Amino acid sequence: MDYVDYPKYPRDLAPGAPVRSGIPEHGRVPKYYAVKAQVAELIDDLGEGGPLPPERDLALRYEVSRETVRQALRDLILEGRLRRRGRGTVVAGPKLEQPLSLASYTEGVRRQGRRPGRRLIALDRFPCPETLAADIGAGHGEPVWHLERVLLADDERVGLESTYIPVARVPLLDVEFDPDSSLYAYLHERLSITFGYADERIETVLATPREALLVGTPPALPMLLIHRVSRDAAGKPLERVRTLYRGDRFSFTTHLSGTHSG
Amino acid sequence: MDYVDYPKYPRDLAPGAPVRSGIPEHGRVPKYYAVKAQVAELIDDLGEGGPLPPERDLALRYEVSRETVRQALRDLILEGRLRRRGRGTVVAGPKLEQPLSLASYTEGVRRQGRRPGRRLIALDRFPCPETLAADIGAGHGEPVWHLERVLLADDERVGLESTYIPVARVPLLDVEFDPDSSLYAYLHERLSITFGYADERIETVLATPREALLVGTPPALPMLLIHRVSRDAAGKPLERVRTLYRGDRFSFTTHLSGTHSG
Repeated sequence: MDYVDYPKYPRDLAPGAPVRSGIPEHGRVPKYYAVKAQVAELIDDLGEGGPLPPERDLALRYEVSRETVRQALRDLILEGRLRRRGRGTVVAGPKLEQPLSLASYTEGVRRQGRRPGRRLIALDRFPCPETLAADIGAGHGEPVWHLERVLLADDERVGLESTYIPVARVPLLDVEFDPDSSLYAYLHERLSITFGYADERIETVLATPREALLVGTPPALPMLLIHRVSRDAAGKPLERVRTLYRGDRFSFTTHLSGTHSG
Repeated sequence: MDYVDYPKYPRDLAPGAPVRSGIPEHGRVPKYYAVKAQVAELIDDLGEGGPLPPERDLALRYEVSRETVRQALRDLILEGRLRRRGRGTVVAGPKLEQPLSLASYTEGVRRQGRRPGRRLIALDRFPCPETLAADIGAGHGEPVWHLERVLLADDERVGLESTYIPVARVPLLDVEFDPDSSLYAYLHERLSITFGYADERIETVLATPREALLVGTPPALPMLLIHRVSRDAAGKPLERVRTLYRGDRFSFTTHLSGTHSG
């Protein structure tokens, strides 16, 4: 890789930004990263929706090859600071800030003034495997629904959700439920099922080819994956959910309380 | 990119795994991904610490180029399923599961039976910028500490933490505090400061060159970034923290409760 000296870096004192804008103390960075740091400054000047100059102009301006510019833009796109629009590239809006809560996806997106939506990919029944039985409170081999939906915000595809729930709990899911609506609202309104608590685990993973295709992202985009196991108000296991969110479009927030001492 | 048909995929019914092992319904995947799916099966057979066959053997076995094998292994390393050991590659252990809580890093790691540690990178004083003032309850221009430390688990570098806290709150931080120990324990034991609550935001970002160097990861490894703003028991702003965790080594857990209805 080609390295360049980058002695002057934008001293970004914003405490959310990386220290020294990510430039090591020795001042040497890969060429594409120096371009990335400069385009990041340009992004701040342009503001949301602002169109980035074409690649060839940036290559001339920074005196690097178009391939180096492309690599810098690829990183900024993966991080959600830029996005493709048509043939061009524009400054992306801020990431959605979804609260980690028992509230549904629908509700979280609505609170941020965006329009939530869902698109059905599949609704299958299959016999409950050993690995799932305890989590959802179904016997090994008993029928389980697998409901898979793409998550939308303002008609943009932003995630992919797989819900596993025993058929015995929601026997008419395939006939009664509108898959474009909130499952939690259906469970509550039609079946009086109320959630008691859920345990979640968050990690970052790379999108698989199938997921990239369904969500419309570049393959291997870093995604946020949330595993959820929920119980109803009586403490009975209810569902297991695997939700993948675009890492360039989502962040998650949580409020932690309780006195603590070290 | 080279595509291959991949009609037989390991039908992984584990609900935490991607549907159809990430293979699109049309069955065509990039060649490296087909290798990745097969190596993933091999990983399950080998178990933690098991050494992977050399790249050239895998290339022969799957009838692909060594470059294709390398690309598959690179993905599995980014996801934390494999890790480099010396010149070879071995099956990685499971990710740490760190609870999202007011408890310190130290405590979270200890609960998982690992040995926490920290290594000082820098302790600076600087005048509080506008962007930080409200978060930490310092006036614009008042002195602020920036404490930057590498986080360790069993002597392995796993993260990088920047804490911003007003000098007025902890005037002797530079002389009294052992930077390898828990800051929260120091605040509590020496200054009787107790935490009231904190707001956190989690996102995935790519490691900058400086961060990759300090944490010892490949550059552009997906990381989990947590922004924290904490208040003391009296509700007074206290600190702002930016913590970066290796995406291949960490996941975060949370317990959600409270009756909810759709």
